[in-house]
Amino acid sequence: MTDPHPPRPLPVPELARLSVNQMTVKQLSLPELAKVCVELGIAHVGLWREPVQTYGVEAAARLVRDAGLTVTSLCRGGFLTATGLEERAAALADNRRAVEEAAALGTDTLVLVCGGLPPGDKDLHGARERVADALAELAPYAGQYGVKLAVEPLHPMFAADRCVVSTLAQALDLAERFPAHQVGVTVDTYHLWWDDRAPEQIARAGAAGRLHAFQLADWTTPLPAGVLNGRGQLGDGAIDLREWAGYAAAAGYTGPIEVELFNDELWARDGREVLAETARRFVEHVVR
Amino acid sequence: MTDPHPPRPLPVPELARLSVNQMTVKQLSLPELAKVCVELGIAHVGLWREPVQTYGVEAAARLVRDAGLTVTSLCRGGFLTATGLEERAAALADNRRAVEEAAALGTDTLVLVCGGLPPGDKDLHGARERVADALAELAPYAGQYGVKLAVEPLHPMFAADRCVVSTLAQALDLAERFPAHQVGVTVDTYHLWWDDRAPEQIARAGAAGRLHAFQLADWTTPLPAGVLNGRGQLGDGAIDLREWAGYAAAAGYTGPIEVELFNDELWARDGREVLAETARRFVEHVVR
Repeated sequence: MTDPHPPRPLPVPELARLSVNQMTVKQLSLPELAKVCVELGIAHVGLWREPVQTYGVEAAARLVRDAGLTVTSLCRGGFLTATGLEERAAALADNRRAVEEAAALGTDTLVLVCGGLPPGDKDLHGARERVADALAELAPYAGQYGVKLAVEPLHPMFAADRCVVSTLAQALDLAERFPAHQVGVTVDTYHLWWDDRAPEQIARAGAAGRLHAFQLADWTTPLPAGVLNGRGQLGDGAIDLREWAGYAAAAGYTGPIEVELFNDELWARDGREVLAETARRFVEHVVR
Repeated sequence: MTDPHPPRPLPVPELARLSVNQMTVKQLSLPELAKVCVELGIAHVGLWREPVQTYGVEAAARLVRDAGLTVTSLCRGGFLTATGLEERAAALADNRRAVEEAAALGTDTLVLVCGGLPPGDKDLHGARERVADALAELAPYAGQYGVKLAVEPLHPMFAADRCVVSTLAQALDLAERFPAHQVGVTVDTYHLWWDDRAPEQIARAGAAGRLHAFQLADWTTPLPAGVLNGRGQLGDGAIDLREWAGYAAAAGYTGPIEVELFNDELWARDGREVLAETARRFVEHVVR
């Protein structure tokens, strides 16, 4: 028999810095996510624009606030590489809305996935410059809302179709054209673990006050077709997550550590079970 | 009706530097490959160890020599990251055989794919150091045979399971511990195109006399499951191949340009047709 009224655990000290990105358990509705986080002693969530819009931004803000959760980031703005004027204007408008949504949700961090090459285009450098041009328009707008843009370098396997910013050095080169409280970077172990320059770049980000978000996922193989949903559960893969948490700590980062997994196998399982497993793995592979 | 005795074309000047890697048309036997290359005016081939071993190394050497073809490289040695003593000794022995095979085939270039992380291992740096240790044993041996080891950085998406050397800078850092005529690098557009540091590293390789092999494939998406056989036909993808050929030329590289495609769709087609298409694409996207 299952106890219909299980005791509500108190927040767990070892989970104090854990934030769960909503996409990790996209099988859960927003109310279910909030409920399970509270039950497991998880105090922070990272939210995703589309499900939040579906639920309603104000309602989502109220829901997480009432549950006592903080929102550590909103994912994601970006996709700023279009060449056409109309597409470009639409992208900028959408990113301004993303800034407003982040502010409404009570988070100061908007993660940006910058976008890939337009169809038929082969000019990575030009696309990166278009990202810089867009940031020049968006950064002051974000600043007005107290929102920091966190440019996320994605793994080089996404350079053509998702994000022309492939290394932390490139992301910082972009961010440093703007004030640190307006534009910084997202460090995600999945995207950066192979890069022997990344540790020194994390230090560079920390020293400049630009380490705005820190995300974890493990690297598992073989990669699935399309390579998007292969982000591994903590501890299942090749990344020494404790080492990377150490780089962030050495760079002065004391903020939330967000677990963001896109994984068909995890999505097919019971969401509460996945979250409980994620919390255990976080303690085992990051905290202890 | 097909002419049973088509005239044999003379070598095509625009194809003078084209080398076709055997894996591009693995549906062709070695005699078929040689015959079609001669018919199309292709003067160079890159060979692959396994099919050459099956055919017989001496017989293969005789076949390509009699066809008037030169062998531009042998792929591949490597897989040097094992931790166990026995595995390690076996890998070194196999690489010494690869050196001997390269010499027997009349090529001075052995491409090395260095190997991934051993199961359960999370130490990329340690694995890269084991590669260096292995090179220290293999480089003088290769030197005795007049064979250059060409360390190939593979795309970072292969860092865990295939090659812990992910950037040209890393490959050169390894190579520069040894004499340039013993150890250099392979530049492959598919693996490096995303890296904004690669052009300067190609210049570094050229200046040091370490640019030992230059390979082409295009980047197409979506990537297939396992991501191994997604190397795109020249011109089908996101890479400005002419630009990359220009970097090699600016670095003083005047050697063969090898097209190496692993692609299930190309393998399913008529091999002669694929080779003719590859030659046309080479002229269109690299030479003109």
